[in-house]
Amino acid sequence: MSKGEQTREHILQRAAEVFSERGFFGTSMNDLVRATGLEKGGIYNHFRSKEQLALEAFDYSYWLVSHRIKTAVQAADLPIERLRAFVAAFASQVEQPLLPGGCPVLNTAVEADDAHPALRERVYGVVQEWTGLLAEMVRDGQAQGALRRDVEPETVATVVVAALEGGIMLAKLMQQREVMRRVVAHLSDYLEQLRTR
Amino acid sequence: MSKGEQTREHILQRAAEVFSERGFFGTSMNDLVRATGLEKGGIYNHFRSKEQLALEAFDYSYWLVSHRIKTAVQAADLPIERLRAFVAAFASQVEQPLLPGGCPVLNTAVEADDAHPALRERVYGVVQEWTGLLAEMVRDGQAQGALRRDVEPETVATVVVAALEGGIMLAKLMQQREVMRRVVAHLSDYLEQLRTR
Repeated sequence: MSKGEQTREHILQRAAEVFSERGFFGTSMNDLVRATGLEKGGIYNHFRSKEQLALEAFDYSYWLVSHRIKTAVQAADLPIERLRAFVAAFASQVEQPLLPGGCPVLNTAVEADDAHPALRERVYGVVQEWTGLLAEMVRDGQAQGALRRDVEPETVATVVVAALEGGIMLAKLMQQREVMRRVVAHLSDYLEQLRTR
Repeated sequence: MSKGEQTREHILQRAAEVFSERGFFGTSMNDLVRATGLEKGGIYNHFRSKEQLALEAFDYSYWLVSHRIKTAVQAADLPIERLRAFVAAFASQVEQPLLPGGCPVLNTAVEADDAHPALRERVYGVVQEWTGLLAEMVRDGQAQGALRRDVEPETVATVVVAALEGGIMLAKLMQQREVMRRVVAHLSDYLEQLRTR
């Protein structure tokens, strides 16, 4: 990486952390100056506005989480194991956080859904990707005869993502890891019930 | 109500709507001036700061949701029906919203957990109240012999609140009511499995 690319990467990393804890509207340029150790002008050399930096910081944050999830999913073989790997990798954000403020998809969805169309569109795309990936795993399992055919793949995808995102919200708020363990145990039972008998 | 009390109530209602869509950090005093139709001074006559107004608007918002949930729960008789009533009343926030920006507990938890200790403390209290209420319903059902004794009441409470909050986040983001219906159907199956056989 060139010096400029390194600086850009450094800004993105620090910005992702600040947005993660304070949100888009709660983060000022001064917060970003403090976090990066750069002057305002130094930041604007690489990103034309706080808005532009927020969008790219979201992409960076989402990539961190998605990369962990996809790596775990790809290491598993059978569809049911891949579903479990998705759940475990997602839930690991509580005990081994990638960002200080929790799941960037949850945080950005809640902040942006009514108030920031460009960010909302980014999160929408990620959720579609995640639920699409989960539904595909269910369909693969059904095609292999391992998972029940009377289950709607989209329903499984919705239930898994909803429980995980709600779980991370509760675990962060209550500062209790136990909360996420309960949600994972529940989803584990749920996935077990999808097996053909 | 006196004229002053009416004005105070009017400010709280409008502020709750604005905070609901834009969040604490995304809402400026100017937004509140626009929403209430009052001058800044008129707002400060009743609330000493945006901070103070946000805390009271959260209490007001949470009361709206909690009132709907508790009314539904109290109308039901058996513990399992009370659990179902909690789920249905909570989920009705998607099809019959009380506030434009979705569940105030979810919104405030995500925004405040790292960034606003006083608001975080308020939300923490509400979540403890809700999970406590749910766990108590499970314990009542167990005492009556209607619900399985090998189920942890706190686990049921966590799973229900996590799935509902995650469901409302997804339903709002995707603008799809179907999302919440899937989550409710899942919780309905889950609660059914708690019955003694």
